[in-house]
Amino acid sequence: MNIPNLIGYHTSSEGTITFQTINPITDQLHLELFVEATQAEVDQSANLANAAYRPFSRTSPMERARFLKAIATELEQNKSLLINTYCGESGLNEQRAEVEFARTIFQLTSFADLLSQDLWEVKHIDLAEPNRTPTPKPQLTKYRLGIGPIVVFGASNFPFAYSTVGGDTAAALAAGCPVIIKSHPFHAHTSYQVAKLVVKVAKELNLPEGVFSHLNASGYEVGQQLVQHPLIQGIGFTGSIKGGVAIQQLAQQRSVPIPVFAEMGSLNPVVILPSALKKESDIIASKLALSITQSSGQFCTKPGALFLVKSAETTHFLETFKTIFEKQVSYSMVHPTIARTYTQRAKQVIDQANVQLFTEGTVTNTCNLGIPQLSLTNGQIFDSNKLLQEEVFGPHALLVICKDQQEIEQILENIHGQLTFSLFHNEENIEAHNLFFLALEKAGRVILNGVPTGVEVSPAMQHGGPFPSSSDSRFTAVGTDSIERFLRGVTVQK
Amino acid sequence: MNIPNLIGYHTSSEGTITFQTINPITDQLHLELFVEATQAEVDQSANLANAAYRPFSRTSPMERARFLKAIATELEQNKSLLINTYCGESGLNEQRAEVEFARTIFQLTSFADLLSQDLWEVKHIDLAEPNRTPTPKPQLTKYRLGIGPIVVFGASNFPFAYSTVGGDTAAALAAGCPVIIKSHPFHAHTSYQVAKLVVKVAKELNLPEGVFSHLNASGYEVGQQLVQHPLIQGIGFTGSIKGGVAIQQLAQQRSVPIPVFAEMGSLNPVVILPSALKKESDIIASKLALSITQSSGQFCTKPGALFLVKSAETTHFLETFKTIFEKQVSYSMVHPTIARTYTQRAKQVIDQANVQLFTEGTVTNTCNLGIPQLSLTNGQIFDSNKLLQEEVFGPHALLVICKDQQEIEQILENIHGQLTFSLFHNEENIEAHNLFFLALEKAGRVILNGVPTGVEVSPAMQHGGPFPSSSDSRFTAVGTDSIERFLRGVTVQK
Repeated sequence: MNIPNLIGYHTSSEGTITFQTINPITDQLHLELFVEATQAEVDQSANLANAAYRPFSRTSPMERARFLKAIATELEQNKSLLINTYCGESGLNEQRAEVEFARTIFQLTSFADLLSQDLWEVKHIDLAEPNRTPTPKPQLTKYRLGIGPIVVFGASNFPFAYSTVGGDTAAALAAGCPVIIKSHPFHAHTSYQVAKLVVKVAKELNLPEGVFSHLNASGYEVGQQLVQHPLIQGIGFTGSIKGGVAIQQLAQQRSVPIPVFAEMGSLNPVVILPSALKKESDIIASKLALSITQSSGQFCTKPGALFLVKSAETTHFLETFKTIFEKQVSYSMVHPTIARTYTQRAKQVIDQANVQLFTEGTVTNTCNLGIPQLSLTNGQIFDSNKLLQEEVFGPHALLVICKDQQEIEQILENIHGQLTFSLFHNEENIEAHNLFFLALEKAGRVILNGVPTGVEVSPAMQHGGPFPSSSDSRFTAVGTDSIERFLRGVTVQK
Repeated sequence: MNIPNLIGYHTSSEGTITFQTINPITDQLHLELFVEATQAEVDQSANLANAAYRPFSRTSPMERARFLKAIATELEQNKSLLINTYCGESGLNEQRAEVEFARTIFQLTSFADLLSQDLWEVKHIDLAEPNRTPTPKPQLTKYRLGIGPIVVFGASNFPFAYSTVGGDTAAALAAGCPVIIKSHPFHAHTSYQVAKLVVKVAKELNLPEGVFSHLNASGYEVGQQLVQHPLIQGIGFTGSIKGGVAIQQLAQQRSVPIPVFAEMGSLNPVVILPSALKKESDIIASKLALSITQSSGQFCTKPGALFLVKSAETTHFLETFKTIFEKQVSYSMVHPTIARTYTQRAKQVIDQANVQLFTEGTVTNTCNLGIPQLSLTNGQIFDSNKLLQEEVFGPHALLVICKDQQEIEQILENIHGQLTFSLFHNEENIEAHNLFFLALEKAGRVILNGVPTGVEVSPAMQHGGPFPSSSDSRFTAVGTDSIERFLRGVTVQK
């Protein structure tokens, strides 16, 4: 069965390249053949999105709220089909699928609620003062306006919540921007099924054709063509540093550069101070083991390096941690290439001088396993080897044993920007410590006595930190503030 | 007399290159020799700014408000000296100097007032829900944090309000970011005098050394070195498209790219509908003549192209406009190179096929004149010649006579992004017209029945539009919202 592209309200499959998705648990190919979009189809989707921009950006916020809520309802009504396809393509289990599905619905309704606020479209009003001297003051009203057609790249690790109608799409549609999805090839069928529902809803609500399109793509070409297309005004991307930086550079080389919101890699350092281990060593060990291994560690906020001070408490903690970690079960990763890359990268870390394997999780009998691994080194080695400071995407973390807290601080002064920075402590007034200041400077979110995974969808969330964890640390990719990425102010003076 | 660089709390003049400023009214060189900063001095200022960042970004908003207010007080106390130097270096008259000075003070105090709001540093709080199922909800507090040391490039046309402690500097300091000024070589002495006062205040308030530095530069090198310096985290720039784009590209080529807020060129189209001319043709002519010629047209919002529909009203308007415009006096421009470029560019426009000189202002007997000029063409010629769609910096505007309103709309669909778009009309419900929608899409500010010059400093102001008028249309360069350029969110979760 051929799966076409969805271009506005039409299906189109002009291309000759096709690809299939795989069940990573069994290594079996699914039967559907996805027809990759051609340059002509990219153009059509961009032209339609551009034509839809003027009427769509001028719909009232309430109309767009209705659109988002109707999408959420439509998803709910097709939940079992969607979850079934999701699990078959990602290898992620039903429980995870349920959580991610609920998150996706919550994101859509959060934006709908935001848009339902009185006069949301007005950012500021400054009233006229006709009698001001020497010159009268005009009335100034600053409106929020969507920036134009947006391309969203699906993410490999979140088929629902960061892909087809995930956070980026919900934010862009809420802002009044038409969206073109570059579907992720690992879960192209899940994406297509979701997209079909969005198109159905848009049509039912008489929204302009082109407000949403969905393109199949297995390689880089379609993405490149979209980023370079003169009618595209912004990009949402979740993925690797390499991919994000390439897109950012392409977008900057255009004759009219456009903003790219790339949420990229992060090591997510965790510092465990001796004071914390005196109190709840075992609880910390359990929390961290789960945070590193759940969903095979395929989270952008997975803790990748744990910093401890050499001490009796640390020795005890490591014993407990090892026992707990060994019980962690290995699962299939979302795709054979992800599993292969993970295995290579984890091995690469352990193969570095003065790094050793500390312990492994339990191996199971399915394909494309991400075997949970902890490796071990010391502060000096970590500080001097940049390779150890890069993310390993999967259920791996590096234990870094330091001489003292000062060494931890010295090391962390030199690391690059991070999405998160976690700090387990039992100090009075930790927020006056230098380590806390350092955490604020290095990351978008600082977690005290908690793990970084489990990103709350909240207006108070900052998901995005200094480069290279994000391409623009002034914006968040999670929570309703993420709409600011796709809006600009326009003032009407009269 | 040698004028040194101000690096933190020290003066430094290690370099061998010196330059002088000129009085553009008399073409006489001033005596002071400005010692251009060396790469070593650039490094020193960046190192000091970086060292100052941690303590300065952690001062309370109230402390920074005190700093900004103290700078304003210090400027007031030295007002006559500053205005005297300003007029001698820019050729702008005292009345203009007074207005710009007052604006600069107002900007500083506006940011001080913003910072004085209760809990300004907290953007959102989301309270914990320890009993939430299946997982407890942590408390999330999203703080505003300055992004790091900022370089501000002085602007040729605003020695006070967009330069040394102008809008960009006030915004960056308010955000908690140390600032390094790349002084504008046309008004290096005004800049130095202002900078000395800022350093004095910073010292008196015991702020960390490096919170403010001031570098002399006549060429491109110092600016390039600053943009490429790994410790610099952001750039504020007001100037030409060429200059802004070059800085933007340099900033993107860094291994860690940084944001550039470049406020660049704009044609600032003005559409005068026939309905407006039926009502107050003469008033519109007077307002526009002044808007085009005041301060020798050296405003980024100067109207550069006026679109009219061929009609009896337009013929009458043009007669009146010509009479008024001929009376406009020519003034010196801020620098011989600016005057030379203006004269060349205005001539270049008139030399285009099917463009003619419509009228000129009155010539006076000072140096470096910017002679007010109106040129004339039709819609078809304007649409087909890109050169006519670029800014001429100075007191020049192009009259574009179109067949009908539809032709105006077609032409304006194709122009690039603008700071402003003005619309004179006498229609019912203009905000439902396609022309109004077009204006919103093309510009950062839409002015109804008014001229674009005279930018209010207000939270409702949007000064910055789609590329190439600005490098990032989502931010404003004027008004307290401009602080957002130099802030990022950081969430503390506990």
